[in-house]
Amino acid sequence: MKAYTEMTKEELEKELADVREEYERFRLMDLHLDMSRGKPCKEQLDLSMGMMDALNSSVDLSCEDGTDCRNYGVIDGIEEAKVLIGDMMENSPDNIIIYGNSSLNVMYDAVSRAMTHGILGNTPWCKLDKVKFLCPSPGYDRHFAITEYFGIEMIPVPMTEDGPDMDMVEELVSKDEAIKGIWCVPKYSNPQGYSYSEETVYRFAHLKPAAADFRIFWDNAYGIHHLYDHDRAFIPEILAECKKAGNPDLVYKFASTSKITFPGSGIASLATSPNNLEDILKQLSRQTIGHDKVNQLRHVRFFGDISGMVEHMRKHADVIRPKFEAVLDCFDRNLLGLGIGEWTRPMGGYFISFETMEGCAKEVVHMAKKAGVKMTEAGATWPYHNDPKDTNIRVAPTYPTLEDLRMAAELFTICVRIVSAEKILATM
Amino acid sequence: MKAYTEMTKEELEKELADVREEYERFRLMDLHLDMSRGKPCKEQLDLSMGMMDALNSSVDLSCEDGTDCRNYGVIDGIEEAKVLIGDMMENSPDNIIIYGNSSLNVMYDAVSRAMTHGILGNTPWCKLDKVKFLCPSPGYDRHFAITEYFGIEMIPVPMTEDGPDMDMVEELVSKDEAIKGIWCVPKYSNPQGYSYSEETVYRFAHLKPAAADFRIFWDNAYGIHHLYDHDRAFIPEILAECKKAGNPDLVYKFASTSKITFPGSGIASLATSPNNLEDILKQLSRQTIGHDKVNQLRHVRFFGDISGMVEHMRKHADVIRPKFEAVLDCFDRNLLGLGIGEWTRPMGGYFISFETMEGCAKEVVHMAKKAGVKMTEAGATWPYHNDPKDTNIRVAPTYPTLEDLRMAAELFTICVRIVSAEKILATM
Repeated sequence: MKAYTEMTKEELEKELADVREEYERFRLMDLHLDMSRGKPCKEQLDLSMGMMDALNSSVDLSCEDGTDCRNYGVIDGIEEAKVLIGDMMENSPDNIIIYGNSSLNVMYDAVSRAMTHGILGNTPWCKLDKVKFLCPSPGYDRHFAITEYFGIEMIPVPMTEDGPDMDMVEELVSKDEAIKGIWCVPKYSNPQGYSYSEETVYRFAHLKPAAADFRIFWDNAYGIHHLYDHDRAFIPEILAECKKAGNPDLVYKFASTSKITFPGSGIASLATSPNNLEDILKQLSRQTIGHDKVNQLRHVRFFGDISGMVEHMRKHADVIRPKFEAVLDCFDRNLLGLGIGEWTRPMGGYFISFETMEGCAKEVVHMAKKAGVKMTEAGATWPYHNDPKDTNIRVAPTYPTLEDLRMAAELFTICVRIVSAEKILATM
Repeated sequence: MKAYTEMTKEELEKELADVREEYERFRLMDLHLDMSRGKPCKEQLDLSMGMMDALNSSVDLSCEDGTDCRNYGVIDGIEEAKVLIGDMMENSPDNIIIYGNSSLNVMYDAVSRAMTHGILGNTPWCKLDKVKFLCPSPGYDRHFAITEYFGIEMIPVPMTEDGPDMDMVEELVSKDEAIKGIWCVPKYSNPQGYSYSEETVYRFAHLKPAAADFRIFWDNAYGIHHLYDHDRAFIPEILAECKKAGNPDLVYKFASTSKITFPGSGIASLATSPNNLEDILKQLSRQTIGHDKVNQLRHVRFFGDISGMVEHMRKHADVIRPKFEAVLDCFDRNLLGLGIGEWTRPMGGYFISFETMEGCAKEVVHMAKKAGVKMTEAGATWPYHNDPKDTNIRVAPTYPTLEDLRMAAELFTICVRIVSAEKILATM
């Protein structure tokens, strides 16, 4: 098919009539499909059912060092969990705190702590007139929700295939002391599936922020979440790079097993420098006596070691790879060459990012919803839900069944075609 | 034996020589005993090992309403956990949020949220010049550690057998808008084991605080932690009383299963009014996607219902009752009538509170430590670790074995006798 922009008015009107007809057929099917959130599907959850057998009443719930995991204590996590998660994060166990079930909670608490107590002796952010964060956009809506909740001004920074626009990042952080942080999803980014280039990581490690309490919030949510054995993304380890650059305290790095075992019942962690750890542990020891060590032990016993976890991630990939491919096949089949949308082709992570023509994203999501397919709300991937060109839609292929997903993707492309055709016709 | 204060100098010198000799015999034994923290002992932890079998890989991890506990979602807890914990707390499931593993964490977050965002639209506490809390003392050190960490001024309020001095509480909160909260352990209080009287609870519910954002932090940590089937403490339910008094939003009530199943691997909860719940859920939904639902389900499946939990608590009582009695027997045998100390006789909870003669508590704890028996640091039960008369020592009988405990209690009474005799002799 020709690109829409090359069609005559008559051709485009014919095309619009055809896809509207298709849309009506879908509406009659009374669909209830959900491509909105990055949730694992049932088959993925089933992969971790063995974890429910890792501990039972005849098993000794003690650590290698003799700690009884059933009792109080061990604020920073049991040693064997630090080793496992350290291997997962490519960090030394000595740089790690194991938390509860949610890395988002760890990030929220990091911002909250900086608000009330400051970072490493600097002024608490709540005492400052203005606190700003850089927000590579499109990005993760729940990151932006945290900074918005704390009244932190969010400055969008364009994302490229290599990561955030580092010229802009360097310029801004070096000049403005009010800029205290940046949200990063460095590998298989949410929503694009981009992985930061070596140069990007290197430039992050060498940042010279005006604010002494500037921190990179490095959410390595998809560190081992590859779709393929070949073509895996490798990025330099940020703590090591910061240390080499003489900036050891520059980064808070987050990860969890939420999309490895069970979301909500995994373990989350923070890796950072000894200075930052000491600062954080002062607060953490006021906040809790310790996190769930039995669940830490359960993870360790289930996986054995990192090779067990890597093998486990292959099984996840086998379940969700066909889903990513089904969506991409559908986009290719129905949209390629039409000049009305672009989309990413991730090698890992949980999302595909779709860019419509300007001013079409909201309407596409709205049309899909009317026909029973729920997408992430348009705009959600931008700070303040404000996508300035109204182009970005996050597509989450993991949760629906393959059959449902094919249907949903098909309908989505129909919505894109209708909205785009209407848009172009309106200018003819 | 006569009271020390009735002894002649010679009699007291003879007594001191005798107990010093006994002390030296203990020192030679190279003890390493711990009566410092309210930790369950191994036998208590063993009682909950069956919980490790409550879920396994062949069990359906879905709620009654079909929610898959393995996946994301359900910010306020699964319904059946709310029912179970609601029965435990004597609150409607509709008034409850189920959190992670630590009620201390829930309390910390409640204070932190009030600091950064205020309560129900009132000014965030971090924007105020002064924030104060009332601290019934002696009290729980970790409560005081939270308010101290946030720079909140702590005002001690005397504790009586019926609860805090309510004349003083009413007077202070009605006059001073800077007073934003009070820490309460209403049943089997930490460290005395006192339970608030009906009148005390009633007067709490009818408080008329100057501050609209004053909240009672009602830490019902030992709600079902009775030592005896008879003589159980009953106190009126505070949410219901507040509602009846026209003060529905006055209280945050906290509880957990930390001392029911496994400390660190239990579930914590908050019960409060619909207005407060709405306020809190706004924040909570920024902080996390949800807490550990699998662990919630594990608790529900293990206990079945509240009657299962009550039966379980009887087994706890059977393990720790002899420990409380051993300590009290020892105190009676070695100290009764000497006029050098007073102690409580709790019917539940985790502690016995000991009052030395003025100016003796620190030295008693120090002497015990030198002989290998660790007690809670003297002063810890008061705000800023400042016990104005240096009299209070918290005794935690649950963790050591009965044999160790007998030894530790014996040594403790010897230390009390030595320090008291020295004190009196110095004034003769």
